[in-house]
Amino acid sequence: MIVTIKKDGNQAQVDNLLTWIKSIGLSTHVSKGENNTIVGLVGDTTKVDIGLLESLDIVESVTRIQEPYKNANRKFHPEDTIIDVGGHKYGGNNFQIIAGPCSVESKEQVLSIAKEVKAAGATALRGGAFKPRTSPYAFQGLGFEGLDILRDVRDKTGMPIVTEIMSEFHIDAFMDIDIIQVGARNMQNFSLLKELGKLDKPILLKRGLSATIEEWLMSAEYIMAGGNNKIILCERGIRTYEPYTRNTLDLSAIPLIKEKTHLPVIVDPSHASGLSRLVRPMSLASVGAGADGLIIEVHNDPPRALCDGAQCLRPEQFSEVVRAIDVMLPLVGKVRD
Amino acid sequence: MIVTIKKDGNQAQVDNLLTWIKSIGLSTHVSKGENNTIVGLVGDTTKVDIGLLESLDIVESVTRIQEPYKNANRKFHPEDTIIDVGGHKYGGNNFQIIAGPCSVESKEQVLSIAKEVKAAGATALRGGAFKPRTSPYAFQGLGFEGLDILRDVRDKTGMPIVTEIMSEFHIDAFMDIDIIQVGARNMQNFSLLKELGKLDKPILLKRGLSATIEEWLMSAEYIMAGGNNKIILCERGIRTYEPYTRNTLDLSAIPLIKEKTHLPVIVDPSHASGLSRLVRPMSLASVGAGADGLIIEVHNDPPRALCDGAQCLRPEQFSEVVRAIDVMLPLVGKVRD
Amino acid sequence: MIVTIKKDGNQAQVDNLLTWIKSIGLSTHVSKGENNTIVGLVGDTTKVDIGLLESLDIVESVTRIQEPYKNANRKFHPEDTIIDVGGHKYGGNNFQIIAGPCSVESKEQVLSIAKEVKAAGATALRGGAFKPRTSPYAFQGLGFEGLDILRDVRDKTGMPIVTEIMSEFHIDAFMDIDIIQVGARNMQNFSLLKELGKLDKPILLKRGLSATIEEWLMSAEYIMAGGNNKIILCERGIRTYEPYTRNTLDLSAIPLIKEKTHLPVIVDPSHASGLSRLVRPMSLASVGAGADGLIIEVHNDPPRALCDGAQCLRPEQFSEVVRAIDVMLPLVGKVRD
Amino acid sequence: MIVTIKKDGNQAQVDNLLTWIKSIGLSTHVSKGENNTIVGLVGDTTKVDIGLLESLDIVESVTRIQEPYKNANRKFHPEDTIIDVGGHKYGGNNFQIIAGPCSVESKEQVLSIAKEVKAAGATALRGGAFKPRTSPYAFQGLGFEGLDILRDVRDKTGMPIVTEIMSEFHIDAFMDIDIIQVGARNMQNFSLLKELGKLDKPILLKRGLSATIEEWLMSAEYIMAGGNNKIILCERGIRTYEPYTRNTLDLSAIPLIKEKTHLPVIVDPSHASGLSRLVRPMSLASVGAGADGLIIEVHNDPPRALCDGAQCLRPEQFSEVVRAIDVMLPLVGKVRD
Repeated sequence: MIVTIKKDGNQAQVDNLLTWIKSIGLSTHVSKGENNTIVGLVGDTTKVDIGLLESLDIVESVTRIQEPYKNANRKFHPEDTIIDVGGHKYGGNNFQIIAGPCSVESKEQVLSIAKEVKAAGATALRGGAFKPRTSPYAFQGLGFEGLDILRDVRDKTGMPIVTEIMSEFHIDAFMDIDIIQVGARNMQNFSLLKELGKLDKPILLKRGLSATIEEWLMSAEYIMAGGNNKIILCERGIRTYEPYTRNTLDLSAIPLIKEKTHLPVIVDPSHASGLSRLVRPMSLASVGAGADGLIIEVHNDPPRALCDGAQCLRPEQFSEVVRAIDVMLPLVGKVRD
Repeated sequence: MIVTIKKDGNQAQVDNLLTWIKSIGLSTHVSKGENNTIVGLVGDTTKVDIGLLESLDIVESVTRIQEPYKNANRKFHPEDTIIDVGGHKYGGNNFQIIAGPCSVESKEQVLSIAKEVKAAGATALRGGAFKPRTSPYAFQGLGFEGLDILRDVRDKTGMPIVTEIMSEFHIDAFMDIDIIQVGARNMQNFSLLKELGKLDKPILLKRGLSATIEEWLMSAEYIMAGGNNKIILCERGIRTYEPYTRNTLDLSAIPLIKEKTHLPVIVDPSHASGLSRLVRPMSLASVGAGADGLIIEVHNDPPRALCDGAQCLRPEQFSEVVRAIDVMLPLVGKVRD
Repeated sequence: MIVTIKKDGNQAQVDNLLTWIKSIGLSTHVSKGENNTIVGLVGDTTKVDIGLLESLDIVESVTRIQEPYKNANRKFHPEDTIIDVGGHKYGGNNFQIIAGPCSVESKEQVLSIAKEVKAAGATALRGGAFKPRTSPYAFQGLGFEGLDILRDVRDKTGMPIVTEIMSEFHIDAFMDIDIIQVGARNMQNFSLLKELGKLDKPILLKRGLSATIEEWLMSAEYIMAGGNNKIILCERGIRTYEPYTRNTLDLSAIPLIKEKTHLPVIVDPSHASGLSRLVRPMSLASVGAGADGLIIEVHNDPPRALCDGAQCLRPEQFSEVVRAIDVMLPLVGKVRD
Repeated sequence: MIVTIKKDGNQAQVDNLLTWIKSIGLSTHVSKGENNTIVGLVGDTTKVDIGLLESLDIVESVTRIQEPYKNANRKFHPEDTIIDVGGHKYGGNNFQIIAGPCSVESKEQVLSIAKEVKAAGATALRGGAFKPRTSPYAFQGLGFEGLDILRDVRDKTGMPIVTEIMSEFHIDAFMDIDIIQVGARNMQNFSLLKELGKLDKPILLKRGLSATIEEWLMSAEYIMAGGNNKIILCERGIRTYEPYTRNTLDLSAIPLIKEKTHLPVIVDPSHASGLSRLVRPMSLASVGAGADGLIIEVHNDPPRALCDGAQCLRPEQFSEVVRAIDVMLPLVGKVRD
């Protein structure tokens, strides 16, 4: 960490600062330039309160050199983390495709889709039982009944299930879910993250609507600090000024985040755009960018009367996307199982 | 709600769509232009799933005319909502100042600050017991002990207390807090919002880090849908691309949101900037913009050794800001009690 | 265009508005709902001043149904525009790769790179003679001498040349440049766009740093309104709040913009990230997203002493990227010539 | 400038880097930490190419300590710059109000507005002759005829005139304009900035649509590098994700930029919102934030038939805003002349 002292910084205050830095177990390295004095802080700076330093009136700026995350940091864990979910591996040179409906609506619906996406190559089944909805008047999901349907379909198909948790009160009900998803809006629900840190279960951690890469990794760090290292990161688009797209899928984040962390990173091309006709191009783009997998909505189940005209990704279209991905995987050194 | 049909939209699909719209209890109004057919949906459209309509391949775009919030909408409740907290009114032509330390650290600290800010004109005491921290390694607040300190200081000073809730598990412990704060990161923690909707207590709802005004009002709507109408909105800065400021205080939002909703809106100038020397200018700017109040950190309690140099807003500075505000209040038709 | 009238809109003012709309040659279609009256404007609304309508105090909102661009609009020109540059086609099912150094530094440098990228598959040569630099103290490019070097290398290699124009004063000097590039910072330099509209030359129009897709197409429309339809759009990353990346490459924009317009769209993966090690993944991602081509910096020519360690994309790396792209092109229905 | 070297950086490459840094006239200061080696660059680093350093594969990050702007930097010119325009001073403890119509439409219109705003307290007259319009089909302004009208009204009223330049070709025609405005879209039209740097005239430099404060100051630096130090900065709202407002007025930028630079900073509350009913609150907010002045549209001249209903800021409303501002000025230590 580098603290830049103002040109006219009072020397007594500078000395107080240096004394205080040493008192919290760090050593300092001072270098005086023409216009500024620069103080380097050496040691474990993850606990230093940057805001406090910045608020001092002798300080011009504070720059972190060391990332504030440790467990998630590739610097200290150079090897890729590989997470096994029902025999399917996330991370390393593996590529996994999770697929299923947006919402769980009935056992028939989920079972039918599950069989088709499994046949096409999906290795896990997604489906929302508790749905985060902007409006309190919108359908909030089948809840516990939805979880039961997912469990039932898992029994019948052998597919691991992925579904979103929305309340700390529900932890017990999610104990046998194979991958617990944390949605974008809860990425910084720190109380929930702490609870998930106590588990020994894979967590699919979606990036917040406007989370920086660093904040996202800090949320992973919250879970890991509790002892649970099984985290699969999921890019799902960020908020920008552009009104034509619902979100801007940040694919540049993929190769960067894989430099920063050893955790696997997958992409959700369905939610990013909100338009199922963008799922194919954004899926191929994600593979090109180096993602470790995809989570795709295969059937958003529009009302029967509208179904012919709806542009949901139907199972046969999903199957074609998987075949295209298979052509690309050798280019990025990955294999699908 | 206006649905624009593509120029080459299949007529049978258009007919299906019209039939379906009627089946959910809405009437339609069709007008054919040169390049598009436009379908107006008449009735209560708050439950219509825009995403579903947009996904139809005959649909070019969907435009909401009616806001998706009802209880929070000034259109249906033209009068300002006025919320009483210990005899101090929020909303209407009232102006309230909430002040106190960022974190509760000790009874002596809180009591001392409370007395000073009360003397200077603050009508409620803020202080964090549970602290949302980006890093799991940072100080997380005194927790329940902090709540006890706040209660104790309330008893001694008569000031209502404002503090942040971070977990659904804590609802019971917050039952006697005068104003329960929902932080920016939990603005879309819908499970928490639903719990708060069951209470009969004022809720200070901070705007999310990158929440639109509409999303913010929809979060208020979540609480109100449960029966609790005592919501005080709090603008605290939004995320932009600008790196020099921690957040960009969105003061243009104040007059706009007051057109949209009847709920009171206050501003937090301390968190927006992260720099206490910006608190005075941003406080005056907030008054000018038409805010119904302010929530100000008065003492961020830096370690003793650093205190002289730190730019925390000290009680005497806070007092000067209040006097400046008093000069301005007649310009915006407000009074401070 | 849809104008929503406020619930309590004064009827005399509404009548004035309807009369005025008719006076500018549009017809109206009025429909009264429970809470709003909605006025549809039928006819050519591209010249209607939305700001004026929004400023009327009886108006709640104005929604454009028809895009404000005409010449660039696929609705009116369903076929892809195909632009020929020295026998190489942009648009349709063609895929072109433009490559070359960031800045023109010497004839030897440019000639050497040109030969290598041509051998590897590039069909046009890029190189900056006039450089847009944030700082007035940074190297501003070789200027006219740089243009001469590019012309010379074109003569020797037969490669068409692409270079950026920065001043209206330079139009004459660019008359024999094969593709004139308009940089992101000049995307809304309307005076320059008008001058380029008078030419019969391909224009590479980069997206502005924070331009919406609609603004970008309106800038194309400026050039087309003057009579020059030879526009190649270039996505180069947009500004977001994320500090880890220099820009966020908006690949979701590619399939969307190809629905909106018939113009070819290429991607610049080099400038988006500022990190040459991201060029390969972002190039493959761009192909997957459906781009019509790429413009890649092949050698940013660091000082000789630093060259070994620098992560510039060297010719052999560029060549490998082209081979990987060739594997992908059949998936997106494109061919490289 | 601080260069952080990767933990596993090749020592020969590090030595090359150090040699190269010295070769460009800087000295270095190396400090080795547990995980990184940090190299401090001492001397005038404004000419160092950060992008080049970042591209080296031994480099983890580069941090600028010294701002890249010199002439605009308060560090080197602690005193406020004060610019005299027809006897009215910008900067220091002065507060100026510029007012006038959005577009120049006729001599009668401009003269009438000029007289009224002068009487109300405006000390300069604004009016657009060349208008930057997103659409090529929108009214582009009266052009040179508009300039003539402004000159004529200046003669009749004695008010200095402020108007926007859009083309390098027009410099000669602007030589007798009192304050030449550079619009947001041209903030990084570096060719135009260089031309303006050769003049001895006040330049009103608007902040770009999504310009950082640093980029804005670098654009000022472009003009100052040419010898023209008479720059008045103008905040006019930045682009964010919020759709309810046209722009987000970044008032937090005001106190921050006044710390960074000695140049005067004014605010345009009219363009920021696009809604004239927000002009009063945003004007008061700007004064509170510490602006050195305002530029306000007083009459956007809607078609006669619509005028009654339009929410343009009429002269009498403008006059009331000025009176409110006068109440506030003592709070911010400013005086209006």
